[in-house]
Amino acid sequence: MKESASGGRRSKKQVLILGAGFAGLYTALHLDKLLGKDSPAEITLVDRNHFHLFTPLLHEVASGVLHPGLVMTPIRRMLRRSRIRFLRARVDGIDLNRRQVQMCCVVKPYDILVIALGSVTNFYGLESMRKRALEVKTVSDAERLRCHVINRFEAATRERDAERRRKLLTFTVVGGGCTGVEVVTELREFLLHLRAEQYDLIPVEEVRTILVELQDRVLPQMDRTLSQAALERMEELGIEVLLNTGVRDWTEEGLIFTDGRPPLSTDTVVWSAGVRAHPVVAALPLEKDPSGRIVVDAHLRVPTMPNVYVLGDAAHAEHPQTGKVYPPTAQVAYRQAPVAAANIAADLLGGPLHVFDFTYIGDLVSLGRLSGVADPFGTRLRGLPAWAMWKFYYLLQLIGWQNRLRVALNWLLALLFPTHSAISFECAPECAGELCL
Amino acid sequence: MKESASGGRRSKKQVLILGAGFAGLYTALHLDKLLGKDSPAEITLVDRNHFHLFTPLLHEVASGVLHPGLVMTPIRRMLRRSRIRFLRARVDGIDLNRRQVQMCCVVKPYDILVIALGSVTNFYGLESMRKRALEVKTVSDAERLRCHVINRFEAATRERDAERRRKLLTFTVVGGGCTGVEVVTELREFLLHLRAEQYDLIPVEEVRTILVELQDRVLPQMDRTLSQAALERMEELGIEVLLNTGVRDWTEEGLIFTDGRPPLSTDTVVWSAGVRAHPVVAALPLEKDPSGRIVVDAHLRVPTMPNVYVLGDAAHAEHPQTGKVYPPTAQVAYRQAPVAAANIAADLLGGPLHVFDFTYIGDLVSLGRLSGVADPFGTRLRGLPAWAMWKFYYLLQLIGWQNRLRVALNWLLALLFPTHSAISFECAPECAGELCL
Repeated sequence: MKESASGGRRSKKQVLILGAGFAGLYTALHLDKLLGKDSPAEITLVDRNHFHLFTPLLHEVASGVLHPGLVMTPIRRMLRRSRIRFLRARVDGIDLNRRQVQMCCVVKPYDILVIALGSVTNFYGLESMRKRALEVKTVSDAERLRCHVINRFEAATRERDAERRRKLLTFTVVGGGCTGVEVVTELREFLLHLRAEQYDLIPVEEVRTILVELQDRVLPQMDRTLSQAALERMEELGIEVLLNTGVRDWTEEGLIFTDGRPPLSTDTVVWSAGVRAHPVVAALPLEKDPSGRIVVDAHLRVPTMPNVYVLGDAAHAEHPQTGKVYPPTAQVAYRQAPVAAANIAADLLGGPLHVFDFTYIGDLVSLGRLSGVADPFGTRLRGLPAWAMWKFYYLLQLIGWQNRLRVALNWLLALLFPTHSAISFECAPECAGELCL
Repeated sequence: MKESASGGRRSKKQVLILGAGFAGLYTALHLDKLLGKDSPAEITLVDRNHFHLFTPLLHEVASGVLHPGLVMTPIRRMLRRSRIRFLRARVDGIDLNRRQVQMCCVVKPYDILVIALGSVTNFYGLESMRKRALEVKTVSDAERLRCHVINRFEAATRERDAERRRKLLTFTVVGGGCTGVEVVTELREFLLHLRAEQYDLIPVEEVRTILVELQDRVLPQMDRTLSQAALERMEELGIEVLLNTGVRDWTEEGLIFTDGRPPLSTDTVVWSAGVRAHPVVAALPLEKDPSGRIVVDAHLRVPTMPNVYVLGDAAHAEHPQTGKVYPPTAQVAYRQAPVAAANIAADLLGGPLHVFDFTYIGDLVSLGRLSGVADPFGTRLRGLPAWAMWKFYYLLQLIGWQNRLRVALNWLLALLFPTHSAISFECAPECAGELCL
C-alpha cells in the first residue's frame, strides 16, 4: 500500500534505521523534517515491537507505581505526520558487503544504514545467571519481577520451615550503578508496601533486600559524596549494601561470591550489572570495544564505512576533545539523533558534517520517595531537590500529554497513598505454574 | 504464621470458599462480619489468582480504554480488616464424601463448603474453536485480543494479495448476547480508532467486523425494541450482523455455517456464545443442568447436602415463585453472597434460613461511545441515558476509590479524544512469534 512502482522506488535512496529506541526513533523524525517533501530518500524504521519504550521509568513499572501503557507509545502514532515507513520485524543479521539487512520475513537493501539496536543484559558468561536471574530491560521483565515477588510472598505464608522462608523472602539485586540503585530502591519500597498492606503477618525483618556491588562504592561514576548519600539513603530504607563484592555463581546453596564469603541463600536475583551490545551488532566484523559496541568516529559513523551509522547503546563513541567514552544511556542516544540526522541529510543533499561533542549533563538517580541524587552540570544535588528534578525532567521527556497527565496523577497518588498504590496485575500463566513452590 | 495450635484449630468449624469472584469474595466478607470476633468458624477463601477481577469492564481492557490494573484488586487488600484467611491455589477436585478439597499443593477438609468457581467458555464441542478462537474471560484474553489485532494490521500493511489481506482484516465475534454485543461494539471502535490513527493507508471498507448470532435477534433476553435499537446502533458503527446463523466449524476455508452459506474467510474469531460450569464443578456427582451448573434450592444449597452451597455462574438457581432461572451474571452472584452468608451463619449460630428471591433488575449493555440499551426494573432505555446509567452504575460498583478515579479519568479522556485513547501495550512473546504472518 505504501509501495510505489519499483522503478520509482529505486531512484530514491534507501535510509534504513534499525531500532526505534531513543536513537533510532528520533533520528528518523529529525531526518524526515530535514529532508522535507521533495526528499531524495525513503526512510524506513524497523523495530520488533510496535511501540517505543520509555526506559527511564521502567523500574516504576516493576514496583507498580506506573502501569506499562504509560511507558509505551505506539510507533505509528509518532510517525503520523511524517513520511517515514515503519516495518515491524526482527533483525536477524546485517550484511555490510551486500548492503542489506536480513529480517525475519524479508531482506531489505539500504544505501544508508543506522544501527540503533541497543543493548542486552551482560551476564559476563555466568550461565546460572543467564538462565535464572531477572532483568529489568522490558515491560515483560518488569511484570515478571512483580509476579515473582508476589509468588514468593504467597509461598512464604504457607512455608513452615524457617530456612526455606528466609530464602523466599531474600531479594537480591546485583549491580550498583544507576540502574541497579534505582531498581533496588524501588523494589525495597514495593516490598515494604506489599508486606504492610497484604502480608502483615510476615515480620518486616524477615524481608531482606540486598544490593551487591563489585566496586568500593555505589554509583561509581558520580562524586564520592553522592555515592555516600545514596548509600546512607538505601541503608535508611533497610537495604543491605555489600560493597567490594563480586558474584561468581548462583547454585542451590545460594549466591556464590568471589571472595569466598558464605553463600547467600536467595530465590530472587535481579541482574543489573551491565549491558553489552545486541548480538546482531556484536557479530559484525567491525572494530568493537569489550562490550561488543561498535567504535564510531566523531560523526557517529563507522570509520571504514561512512554510509553506516551506529548510535545509542550499540555504539562506542568518545567525546572528540576529552576522549571520554559516552555511557550507554537514553540521554546520549537522544542527543546523538539530531547529529546523525544532520549528517545523513548532508550525505544526501550536500553540506557540512556535524560532530557529536555533547557535554554529558550528568545523571539523575531516584532513591524512592522524595529522595534522590543528581549531578547535572557538575553540581551535586541530593534529597528532595534531586528527586524533584528527576520527576520534572522525566515528566517533560515523556511522550504524549495524556501519558504525562496520567503519570503525574500516579505520582501524586503514590506520594499521598504509598501503600495503596502498588497496582495489581495478572500473573502470566507461567507464574501460575509456580502456584505450589 | 496464621496457624494456631492444631488442637485449637480442630475445635473451629472450617468454612471453605472456593473462588474469589463476586460470589465467593462477598460471601466471605459478609460472613466474616456476621460471625464477628468470637466466631465459631474459620473462613478460608481460595483462588488461583491473587486478585479479584471486575469482569463487567473487561471488554474495555480489550479495546484499550482501561488498563488491566483498573479491573483487578488484590484479594488480600480486600481481606485486610477481616479474619478471613486467603489461600492462593488451584482447585483440582472436590471430594464430597470425605468433605475435602484437593488443591494443587494441599488437601483441605471442610465443614461447610461454598463452591463459587464460576464458569468457562462453552465451545459446544467445536474443537476448532476451542483451539483457535479467542475468548474474553480474563485480562490475558483481553491482551491477547489486542495483540492479535495489532499483528493482523501489521501483516496487512505488508500483504499484497487482496484475498489474504481481506482475511487478515475480517474480525468476527460469535454470540449476540450481552457479552458478545459489548465485545463486538468495543472491538469495532478499537479497530476504527487504530486504523485511523496508525494504519490510515488501509481503507476503512477493508476492515470488516461481523457479529454472528444463532437466534433471530441480538440480546434475545431483552425486549424486542431494545434488540432492534442495538442492531441499528451496531449497523451504524459498520458492524455486519448475521442473525439466524449458526457456526459449525472453522477451517482453512473459513468460518463454516450450519445453513450451508459460503464460508467466511477470517483470521479472527472471538467466541462469546455462552458459558458452562467450571470443569471441577461439572465433574461432581450432583444434579446439574445442561451447562453443567449444579442445581441448588432456594437457600442456595445442594438439596441433598445442606453443608454445600453453590453460587454464581456455577449454580443453577431459580426464583422461588416465578421459577425463572437466574442468568450467569455478576449481578446475580453479588446478590447471592449476603443470602449465602446469612444461611451459613444460621448453620453455625442458629437462626432462620433466608431464601434467595432477588428480582433480577435487568441488563445494562454498552454500545460504544455515548450509546447503550438497558432494561432496569422493566423499563426500556436506549442511547445516551442507557449509556450514562451504565457508566455510573459500574463506576460505583468498582472496587477502590483510586480505581474509580482513574477509570473516570480514562472514560473522560476516551470521550474527548477517542482515537488517542487506545493505550499501547506490549505484545507477549508468543505474539512476537507471529511477526511474520
